[in-house]
Amino acid sequence: MEFLIEVDKLKQIERKTKIIGGARQENDAEHSWHLAMMALILQDHANLDVDLLKVIKMLLVHDLVEIDAGDTFAYDTKGHEDKLEREMKAAKRIFGLLPQEQEAELMGLWLEFEQKESAEAKFAGSLDRLQPMVINHLNNGDTWQKYGITSGQVLNRNREIANGSEKLWDYAQLVVRNSVEQGILKE
Amino acid sequence: MEFLIEVDKLKQIERKTKIIGGARQENDAEHSWHLAMMALILQDHANLDVDLLKVIKMLLVHDLVEIDAGDTFAYDTKGHEDKLEREMKAAKRIFGLLPQEQEAELMGLWLEFEQKESAEAKFAGSLDRLQPMVINHLNNGDTWQKYGITSGQVLNRNREIANGSEKLWDYAQLVVRNSVEQGILKE
Repeated sequence: MEFLIEVDKLKQIERKTKIIGGARQENDAEHSWHLAMMALILQDHANLDVDLLKVIKMLLVHDLVEIDAGDTFAYDTKGHEDKLEREMKAAKRIFGLLPQEQEAELMGLWLEFEQKESAEAKFAGSLDRLQPMVINHLNNGDTWQKYGITSGQVLNRNREIANGSEKLWDYAQLVVRNSVEQGILKE
Repeated sequence: MEFLIEVDKLKQIERKTKIIGGARQENDAEHSWHLAMMALILQDHANLDVDLLKVIKMLLVHDLVEIDAGDTFAYDTKGHEDKLEREMKAAKRIFGLLPQEQEAELMGLWLEFEQKESAEAKFAGSLDRLQPMVINHLNNGDTWQKYGITSGQVLNRNREIANGSEKLWDYAQLVVRNSVEQGILKE
């Protein structure tokens, strides 16, 4: 229960991306829910057969470290330098609130997600990259516009979607092309 | 994708319960994430062995109908009169955005959750009842105070926690006792 009460704080960790419509920034808890829902619906588009329960577990826990470490913006190169160190410390504290066996399971899920080697981690990672792209497209470019991001940066940053799903990468590229054509993402 | 974009609206459906700390009302998307996380951590306390993936799927989708039907407060007797009708209409529209096979699966999950007959639905229901109780307790009574709810009402309303988990029902009763002792829930 102590852990389940602590993780309520994820609802207060704001992301750069807004909710669709742009009324306010999205938080990590609702983002995690959205990704789990995407996994449920899009699982057949993974490159390899995936264990859906494992994908969903990963997505539910993947941002918990941000309770301590904060959200690092996708295009913040400096913030990414010490990201892993900050997040590892957070993981130890937060997962450390759990009984030992569950602590090991959740730490394992988080590390597996970060390492992007298993089929499940690759697919979960694809969803984590795709979701803000779709939202930015629907929100007239939003953070792309705000931070002066180019289509080249978006393609480079999100190319790893293909590692989990070639099909979703095709879709993501279409989103980028459409966004450039609509003038909401600069070439 | 059309479905996955539509369900983003769940992030804007506010519940009566606030997030822990009371800064603002909780929304259905983050509530659903919190329940899925609870299922992952508390599964061993279910009365019967449960299929965890099914429990989590149910919790991810259980409030989607509120995108159209809105949140009905637990102690709003009048609102509960036409709740099922309003929600059924919503389910048809929202799940109807999916390909037929997925529409059938999600409609089935939602109906199963509502009917509370399977072990998975009972356990998912226990978590859905327990979460706001724990939050209200931590938020100095919050909605109990605001709407003049008594410990008897809380116990009656949430007794069905026992159907999914006797252990969590014991815990819930302890939360009620402590809340009465602390003077944040009237007897």
